[in-house]
Amino acid sequence: MTDTTNTTSHREPVTVLGLGLMGRALAAAFLEAGHPTTVWNRTPDKATDLVAGGAVLAPSAADAIRAASLVVVCLSDTAAVRDALAPHRADLAGRTLVNLTSGTSDEARELATWSDDHLDGAIMAIPESIGRPEAFLLFSGSRAAFDRHRDSLGRLGNATFFGEDPGLASLYDVALLGVMWGTLNAFLHGAALLGAAKVDATAFAPFANQWIGSVTGFVDAYAAQIDRGDYQAEDAALETHLATMKYLVRESAAAGVDTDWPARLQALTERAIDAGHAGASYASLVEVFRGRA
Amino acid sequence: MTDTTNTTSHREPVTVLGLGLMGRALAAAFLEAGHPTTVWNRTPDKATDLVAGGAVLAPSAADAIRAASLVVVCLSDTAAVRDALAPHRADLAGRTLVNLTSGTSDEARELATWSDDHLDGAIMAIPESIGRPEAFLLFSGSRAAFDRHRDSLGRLGNATFFGEDPGLASLYDVALLGVMWGTLNAFLHGAALLGAAKVDATAFAPFANQWIGSVTGFVDAYAAQIDRGDYQAEDAALETHLATMKYLVRESAAAGVDTDWPARLQALTERAIDAGHAGASYASLVEVFRGRA
Ligand SMILES: NC(=O)c1ccc[n+]([C@@H]2O[C@H](COP(=O)([O-])OP(=O)(O)OC[C@H]3O[C@@H](n4cnc5c(N)ncnc54)[C@H](OP(=O)(O)O)[C@@H]3O)[C@@H](O)[C@H]2O)c1
Ligand SMILES: NC(=O)c1ccc[n+]([C@@H]2O[C@H](COP(=O)([O-])OP(=O)(O)OC[C@H]3O[C@@H](n4cnc5c(N)ncnc54)[C@H](OP(=O)(O)O)[C@@H]3O)[C@@H](O)[C@H]2O)c1
Repeated sequence: MTDTTNTTSHREPVTVLGLGLMGRALAAAFLEAGHPTTVWNRTPDKATDLVAGGAVLAPSAADAIRAASLVVVCLSDTAAVRDALAPHRADLAGRTLVNLTSGTSDEARELATWSDDHLDGAIMAIPESIGRPEAFLLFSGSRAAFDRHRDSLGRLGNATFFGEDPGLASLYDVALLGVMWGTLNAFLHGAALLGAAKVDATAFAPFANQWIGSVTGFVDAYAAQIDRGDYQAEDAALETHLATMKYLVRESAAAGVDTDWPARLQALTERAIDAGHAGASYASLVEVFRGRA
Repeated sequence: MTDTTNTTSHREPVTVLGLGLMGRALAAAFLEAGHPTTVWNRTPDKATDLVAGGAVLAPSAADAIRAASLVVVCLSDTAAVRDALAPHRADLAGRTLVNLTSGTSDEARELATWSDDHLDGAIMAIPESIGRPEAFLLFSGSRAAFDRHRDSLGRLGNATFFGEDPGLASLYDVALLGVMWGTLNAFLHGAALLGAAKVDATAFAPFANQWIGSVTGFVDAYAAQIDRGDYQAEDAALETHLATMKYLVRESAAAGVDTDWPARLQALTERAIDAGHAGASYASLVEVFRGRA
């Protein structure tokens, strides 16, 4: 889109159901981009600022749905979406329902049957960054719907389509959050360990981040190995990793910091080695996570 | 160093004790850079190629030590270093001993008393990359020794000094490896989870790596919080993370992949919340790793 005018005439009408912290940020981003925006919330007074900014407050969810062919819903959880939308399934016919409520992939697959043209989304962002490129929004479900509404959805942030299985956005969401938690926990554990030797966390952080940059190279190499099902050790073999993991366990014990995490890391690696992967690459641990080792 | 000639006259003599896979790579890098290089190994025939390349094979460890004021030792473990060097402690007087053998920080502190001017090092590299900038070498101990021999040590790779406590190189080594293992395990778990929904690991990897780039921003922010001891939630609070961790547990169970890792992640977070950090930032988990929550 190279159009930078702010007139509403070029923008498709949108509806936002749910005006919690996130719903209000979504509606505000649509308004800001010039979309005719209809909103609804169970508790209507949360719409006050949006109405002052040009939004139309619909008196009922049904009225809100009928006001646009792109209907975005963002409530606290899937149960709330069922409560709010079940009476209005007929009104969803011929419209695109975009569910931005957090939920599991199975819940996403269930809600996908409620409209002709469903998209399920996950938001990896805080409300404050909605509308900015750093807000990462994951979509899955109807590719046709995504393509048709891509410009509108792109007003909310960096909108990426992951595939036709409506459950994929939720799955990618938790898988990516898992990568974040795994990385952060290891960093925080390392900060505790080095902290016991009087090293500041801010002294450790730049080296951790530089090293994380190298780790992304291993991620690419191991992903290719997983898809080929061939875990040849091109760098260190699993048994070499195991030997150094034992140092991490010993250092943690000596420093009086948590030994549970390194001990479980070691146990997991030993399971893979017991399953025959001693000489294989680190990628072979995926077999343990798959429950095959 | 702007000197790019390859004459030995500008290079200080060095000694390498131990010619296993790594020791041979170290000696080769010194030779390649033009250092007069004396080598010794318990099993002398491992020196054949190095001698052909210009190295001098010393008949005993004592002779090797006396040949240079910079003595690098790289044996299988600290016990081997004690075996090989204990009879020659007197010969180490006035020389710099650089111990590149893997070991714990306590072992490094012990060996630091063996020479007047000790450096302990850790090698985050495979032998093939020694001598190239991607080989990351960590040093700690005598700053004077590091400064004096910095150019020579820099021939081995990217040589960084971490502080006067000789144990720091080993500690940083395991802390950084921990960050790698934590990140890779979470990626491999995510690859297993998405793989159950027929997503290739190579489809997941670019998004994981892009997201890891964002995680380095959190690392910097959380490091600053840890040093200030102030865990104000500037993005999501710990209880918000907990809610989404439960989705990861449910998705893992539904997909038939490992639930142990996400369940422990959840349990750890619950411990921090029980200790009063529900509204705090993710950085507050460091208190659990420190054993204070
Ligand atoms: N906030 C974030 O940082 C963030 C980030 C990523 C994803 N998300 C996801 O976005 C979704 C919304 O989050 P939020 O922060 O906006 O939550 P919130 O501020 O708690 O808002 C919850 C919304 O759900 C509505 N609701 C709850 N139960 C309902 C029911 N039975 N019928 C009708 N409406 C109901 C509430 O209406 P009332 O106003 O009438 O109570 C309110 O509009 C969640 O799934 C969350 O996981 C949030
Ligand atoms: N290879 C890597 O990728 C790598 C990466 C990072 C760090 N490191 C570390 O570097 C060190 C050496 O590794 P490496 O791969 O070179 O191991 P290696 O190939 O197994 O070589 C072991 C060396 O130790 C010597 N040795 C063992 N016990 C001895 C004793 N009691 N007295 C005298 N010499 C003894 C061996 O001598 P003989 O030849 O006589 O047996 C050989 O020179 C280890 O601490 C390792 O953790 C290695």
